[in-house]
Amino acid sequence: MNISRLTRVIAGMKRAGLSCILVSDPYSVYYLTGRMIWPGERMLALAVYDTGDVKLFVNRLFAQQAEEGLPLIEFDDTEDCVAVLAEHLPGGRVGVDKKWPSLFTIRLMDLRPDIRPVLGSMPVDEARMLKDADEAEGMRISSRINDETLSRLIPTIREGDTELAVGQRYLEIGKGLGASGASFEPLICFGANGAEPHHGTDGTVLKEGDMIILDVGLNVNRMMSDMTRTVVLGKATDEQREVYEIVRAANEAGKKAAAPGVPLKEIDAAARRVIEKAGYGDRFIHRTGHGIGLETHEPPDVSATSGAIARPGMIFSVEPGIYLPGKFGVRIEDLVLVTEDGAETLNKLPRDLIEL
Amino acid sequence: MNISRLTRVIAGMKRAGLSCILVSDPYSVYYLTGRMIWPGERMLALAVYDTGDVKLFVNRLFAQQAEEGLPLIEFDDTEDCVAVLAEHLPGGRVGVDKKWPSLFTIRLMDLRPDIRPVLGSMPVDEARMLKDADEAEGMRISSRINDETLSRLIPTIREGDTELAVGQRYLEIGKGLGASGASFEPLICFGANGAEPHHGTDGTVLKEGDMIILDVGLNVNRMMSDMTRTVVLGKATDEQREVYEIVRAANEAGKKAAAPGVPLKEIDAAARRVIEKAGYGDRFIHRTGHGIGLETHEPPDVSATSGAIARPGMIFSVEPGIYLPGKFGVRIEDLVLVTEDGAETLNKLPRDLIEL
Repeated sequence: MNISRLTRVIAGMKRAGLSCILVSDPYSVYYLTGRMIWPGERMLALAVYDTGDVKLFVNRLFAQQAEEGLPLIEFDDTEDCVAVLAEHLPGGRVGVDKKWPSLFTIRLMDLRPDIRPVLGSMPVDEARMLKDADEAEGMRISSRINDETLSRLIPTIREGDTELAVGQRYLEIGKGLGASGASFEPLICFGANGAEPHHGTDGTVLKEGDMIILDVGLNVNRMMSDMTRTVVLGKATDEQREVYEIVRAANEAGKKAAAPGVPLKEIDAAARRVIEKAGYGDRFIHRTGHGIGLETHEPPDVSATSGAIARPGMIFSVEPGIYLPGKFGVRIEDLVLVTEDGAETLNKLPRDLIEL
Repeated sequence: MNISRLTRVIAGMKRAGLSCILVSDPYSVYYLTGRMIWPGERMLALAVYDTGDVKLFVNRLFAQQAEEGLPLIEFDDTEDCVAVLAEHLPGGRVGVDKKWPSLFTIRLMDLRPDIRPVLGSMPVDEARMLKDADEAEGMRISSRINDETLSRLIPTIREGDTELAVGQRYLEIGKGLGASGASFEPLICFGANGAEPHHGTDGTVLKEGDMIILDVGLNVNRMMSDMTRTVVLGKATDEQREVYEIVRAANEAGKKAAAPGVPLKEIDAAARRVIEKAGYGDRFIHRTGHGIGLETHEPPDVSATSGAIARPGMIFSVEPGIYLPGKFGVRIEDLVLVTEDGAETLNKLPRDLIEL
């Protein structure tokens, strides 16, 4: 167990008035125990009690993957796993994970009418939002390798390349630099594809004059990076350059707004204002950013409806964009880490418009 | 709405004593409405009432993807989606999907203490297990294209190929024949890799004498195929041929046992018995098969602990194997459709041992 993380989770449980929570999200179990177990449809639950005790309920098939020394309660496919779990739970309010399949919650209520399942993922989600020194350093390393991978990839891009081929080369370079894989499928968009919010990397062929969106990230020691750069094949038109510089200014404004105590909706507004003032407000069609860490998308949300306040340790993306249907799109994305007195940008790759 | 499927689901609801169920699995919503909506973390629920009424609760972002004419209740990200849903539900027992995130079930109980959420996915799961004529024909077509793809792939396999390259070629051929993609990542195992139950297709290079497991399937009009053939590069050794023929006999025995009224555990036993009698019982380390249709793995389970009975319309795999650690593995898999008087094997690709 990571005792410092466990201590923060228990403090969160006490604030929420919960004496026991069932942590079932594999990423959250990894966060606390250092071991990743993918149970598929089978039940996995780390019971955390406000006394500091923990018990891992795990199918025998995966028991060897659990952290050594952790109190294990094993079961197999012939047993009623929820009945095994129910014997170890107090009565009253028990916190369950937001994504725990209802199958288990319903069975628990059938077996233990004295238990009232309530939402119980906040203590872990809140702890995970504030990265500790190990996580911040892991995110710096993942972002540094992502920077290096993209800086090596960009000069290789040629007329006639397909989006899929560029994505494949990105992955090969990243793996050569130590990544275990991508944090998400590389999103490579040529020309008008860049203006389609739902475009998936495909066999589109690159041609002279195309703007190229490269939205990419790597999994390095289970910490996920995520960055976007936009480049152009050939000489940029005046419109391409104008839109690019607006997005770059919006990216700068969003990052500059990031500091402890600032509501995240104000960071969204800071980036959005630049684009609105330039007359492209209706072409910035998504939120400004998302939290990231063990998962590519995790709390907090950087949007107009976000209720979160920036606190030291939060890491999120700042990724404004402008999308001109039928023509091209531009997005520039960096990850920022909120510090005690401002924010550190984890991506160092320059943002000057590159004409290939 | 597919009225004949809806009618069967409502009959199942009545058998289970449920007057209302919330269908949230995107595949099950597709099964009933013909439209696939991937809501991500957002709520999606098709309420089915035993009166025959239905209502789809969907985020505005996805409303255009819903079937035309279906009664829609829309909400957006600023609204409490469960509160919107709760207004349309009766009191008492309401069936929820086995995988519905507990977040929603808990919120529903908070808002409507008069509702008792119970497990409610059986009526749709049971209907989906018994394929109708359209689904059976779709599975025949998907399997036929899978047969053709593999028959074209096998002669191209050469010494020096990597597992990944063979998998990639399989996909290209399949797409050329009309598949939209794979039903799962092609599982290609060379030599000793074939004996590792958790091997993932990788950069291993093919060499003379290797047995080659090809476990592949395609997505053709949303129906998933799945087949395994094992071939050898060069002349098979006596041991390779002996093991191959045992697995082939087990595959035949399993398929022959499939008929209406037969417990699926007896189909598992029929295949297993052949391998046990040959002295390799401890080398057949997985269940004999799984149901398949809209999803590659779905009920029923063909295993020693399965409680299901074969009924006309069921489609499942029969895929016995023998795995000799450090040496090689053999698996031969076909899909079978249970008919009124026996079973139809959907894969027609021959099972004679091919020496490349």
